[in-house]
Amino acid sequence: MNTCNFCIKTTEKGKWMLTENKSWTVYLSDEQDYIGRCILILKRHCGCLSELTDNEWMDLKNLIVKLEQCFKSILGAELCNWSCLLNSFYKKPLPNPHLHLHVRPRYKKPFNLNGVEYIDEEFAHHYKLKKRNQVGEEELEKIFNILKKGLE
Amino acid sequence: MNTCNFCIKTTEKGKWMLTENKSWTVYLSDEQDYIGRCILILKRHCGCLSELTDNEWMDLKNLIVKLEQCFKSILGAELCNWSCLLNSFYKKPLPNPHLHLHVRPRYKKPFNLNGVEYIDEEFAHHYKLKKRNQVGEEELEKIFNILKKGLE
Repeated sequence: MNTCNFCIKTTEKGKWMLTENKSWTVYLSDEQDYIGRCILILKRHCGCLSELTDNEWMDLKNLIVKLEQCFKSILGAELCNWSCLLNSFYKKPLPNPHLHLHVRPRYKKPFNLNGVEYIDEEFAHHYKLKKRNQVGEEELEKIFNILKKGLE
Repeated sequence: MNTCNFCIKTTEKGKWMLTENKSWTVYLSDEQDYIGRCILILKRHCGCLSELTDNEWMDLKNLIVKLEQCFKSILGAELCNWSCLLNSFYKKPLPNPHLHLHVRPRYKKPFNLNGVEYIDEEFAHHYKLKKRNQVGEEELEKIFNILKKGLE
């Protein structure tokens, strides 16, 4: 068994952890290709969606409701792109996937942070792969604080 | 209110419908960028994940289990990429989104159909955007029949 970085992330409750419930931990992604992008990590080591328990599945729903509402009301997002891919784990000869989901809020109108406008140039289209991070550490912290407060 | 093509698809039970339950209809996608790609359409007109009822959410889980098991055991997929994006609806001035999910089975080993090998060249990486359809109508029908039988 390889050491699992995702197991570590759910136990250490690191700096960028936004919220959690019984089954899931939510981190603000350091890759802010779309403002507010988060990662939802299952607290149990489990490799695919179909192995979730009913309780874990319901806990995921509650989190989706909470996050989607926050992205729309606080950040002004129009919709959210949700994905559960897990591809990178399969680069290893012995894949040891840990279930997680990505959410990218998508914006029709520019997101304004302290007078700087962030434009979702691909709005109404698939999120761009390998899009560069839109923010520095300082802005990341501001977005984190806005979301943290919104999710309270 | 615009006419909703997704509402029509869930009521007409068209040629490529693979399976259904109380809340969802599953179609084999005509875009077989990855062999077995399907679309899961909510039977009720609803615009985002967070507006699903608990019953619809549990019905989605049951379908994910059924499909993921089938893709792995029947098609030989290694994992599945799940996504709920809804971007295209927002191209219209008055978006009228209808909730649906995409699933792309991903393959470590080539998928063999009647002696022809289909290779997932991006395995362990994000699915390729605008990847061309890998099959013609005849192969689509064969994949449909394999999955239809596997899902019975």
